[in-house]
Amino acid sequence: MGIIRLKNRVSVAAVSSVCGRSEYDGRFSDRYDEHSDDDTFEQKTFERAEEEMMRRCFGHALRKGRFAPSDIDAVFAGDLMNQCTASSYAFSDSGIQYFGLFGACSTMAEAVMLAALTVGGGYFRRAAATACSHFCTAERQFRTPVEYGGQRTPTAQWTVTGAGCAVIDTGNSGMYIKEVLPGITVDRKVTDAANMGAAMAPAAADTLTRYFKESGKSPGDFDVILSGDLGYEGRTITTELLFQKGIELGDNYLDCGELLYKKEQDVHSGGSGCGCSALGLAVYLFERFRKKEIKNALFIGTGALMSPMATAQGHSIPGIAHLVHFSSEV
Amino acid sequence: MGIIRLKNRVSVAAVSSVCGRSEYDGRFSDRYDEHSDDDTFEQKTFERAEEEMMRRCFGHALRKGRFAPSDIDAVFAGDLMNQCTASSYAFSDSGIQYFGLFGACSTMAEAVMLAALTVGGGYFRRAAATACSHFCTAERQFRTPVEYGGQRTPTAQWTVTGAGCAVIDTGNSGMYIKEVLPGITVDRKVTDAANMGAAMAPAAADTLTRYFKESGKSPGDFDVILSGDLGYEGRTITTELLFQKGIELGDNYLDCGELLYKKEQDVHSGGSGCGCSALGLAVYLFERFRKKEIKNALFIGTGALMSPMATAQGHSIPGIAHLVHFSSEV
Repeated sequence: MGIIRLKNRVSVAAVSSVCGRSEYDGRFSDRYDEHSDDDTFEQKTFERAEEEMMRRCFGHALRKGRFAPSDIDAVFAGDLMNQCTASSYAFSDSGIQYFGLFGACSTMAEAVMLAALTVGGGYFRRAAATACSHFCTAERQFRTPVEYGGQRTPTAQWTVTGAGCAVIDTGNSGMYIKEVLPGITVDRKVTDAANMGAAMAPAAADTLTRYFKESGKSPGDFDVILSGDLGYEGRTITTELLFQKGIELGDNYLDCGELLYKKEQDVHSGGSGCGCSALGLAVYLFERFRKKEIKNALFIGTGALMSPMATAQGHSIPGIAHLVHFSSEV
Repeated sequence: MGIIRLKNRVSVAAVSSVCGRSEYDGRFSDRYDEHSDDDTFEQKTFERAEEEMMRRCFGHALRKGRFAPSDIDAVFAGDLMNQCTASSYAFSDSGIQYFGLFGACSTMAEAVMLAALTVGGGYFRRAAATACSHFCTAERQFRTPVEYGGQRTPTAQWTVTGAGCAVIDTGNSGMYIKEVLPGITVDRKVTDAANMGAAMAPAAADTLTRYFKESGKSPGDFDVILSGDLGYEGRTITTELLFQKGIELGDNYLDCGELLYKKEQDVHSGGSGCGCSALGLAVYLFERFRKKEIKNALFIGTGALMSPMATAQGHSIPGIAHLVHFSSEV
């Protein structure tokens, strides 16, 4: 158990992203491949909109990488909608071998990890990793329907309407997967579904501590350390938990949940959802590698393994965090 | 894309199974490691009972294989409860690296497949694959609460209350994973949540057709061909679909959904749920390899990628089927 170093070259061949209006109005407008002004993607329900968003996102990844669907041997996909609805339908009748995942908001990292391990192992020539979330489907499912107009607490996060996709193969892209470290489920007894940052932070701290301890590296060895969707609350707790273990995260530590929106957009503690880290990977991390601005980055997908039923029954929310080390060199 | 032949020795080191009362009253009473007479496993809710069942099942697998938790590098787990609740909680604070999966009733095959690929690739020394379902949590979630007492249709299946676990490593057990073939999502527009056999059969037929076509083998080359939970309805459709392609399934073709219960138990079209194929693998397939009664078997985990929301919105149910080829020889 521990850090897995990939022996063969495993590369991020292409990324794509599709998002909703709020995300388009955020900090990275020009970097999304497509957006929907009313978050519906011309569908009758938000559930269908989420599915359509993921389907289009995959289409953009194929287009940008100049791949045919038959060039993709497998897709690893997941979302938040009971039960992985968007993913199941988005790839229905696509003719592509399909692995459904549930890692809550950590799904993108889980998918990239499994795509990297299977491509690196020579099982697939090329695999896609994709994840998505939609504000309206997630609010209805996990909290209250949007129409209810409930007041949001300061620790609440804003579920990102977005889908991200990364195509993984053994090519020569300038962004390689060097190492992965799968997460361990950690439950610190947070029961507030409006404070997922606190539920996920102990898991993020656990994975990062294990990584630095085993690798002998320190946060300063990386240009960027990017967590998935801890938001302001979770990032602060994670920084504190690591500080207690003697690990100091500096200015290079960022969180996708804080990165995607402008301050005046009032998303409270930051973005969240499977789409959050999926977009962060596509529009921020990949872009910086592409522009040769960074050489080494840690990507930590964080997930609050929430269940509406468990929340209704008063149970706490376990967290998980999967780590992927990207590098500009093989 | 297609059949993946494992290059290194990958073996089923140990299996375990825990079940409810109906399953214990079924055909394999003496083979389960544990059962609960009232399906509660001494928990206050059926949701907690399902989680406890999976936890105990994993404990039995460790005991039977004489493993410590630290001997297991990763667990691949999933269930039907929105959202993979039993699995997330069962392995919470277990200290074991965790991959959450959602393959509906095909989850056990998906988990075995990913465990085999990652162990075979040298990434993990040993991984566990596990899946579970509970009649009462599934009925409440996908159809109507049990207390409602709704009349069941003849095509309806009975969600198995059970958890199965298989520990995969590179040892010498006499039951090896030779090949895997990941499933493709197939949607033939079945909208009846009480006829999952019909929704899954086209996916099972697709995977089996691809397997026989690519391998050049025929059904007669296997001692057992065991599908997950097609039940009477789905097995009949699958047999017919394959017959139309010139592939004749014989008496060696069985389905876990038909295998687990006695005829007089009145489970209509047969068992279903993640637990169905998980139990079938543990109490039937593994047992027959252990007794050296069979040498080659195909295990096809079938899943109806159902979503309560999609069903409520009138959408069809996509199916998927993952194939694992077990052999007594490496």
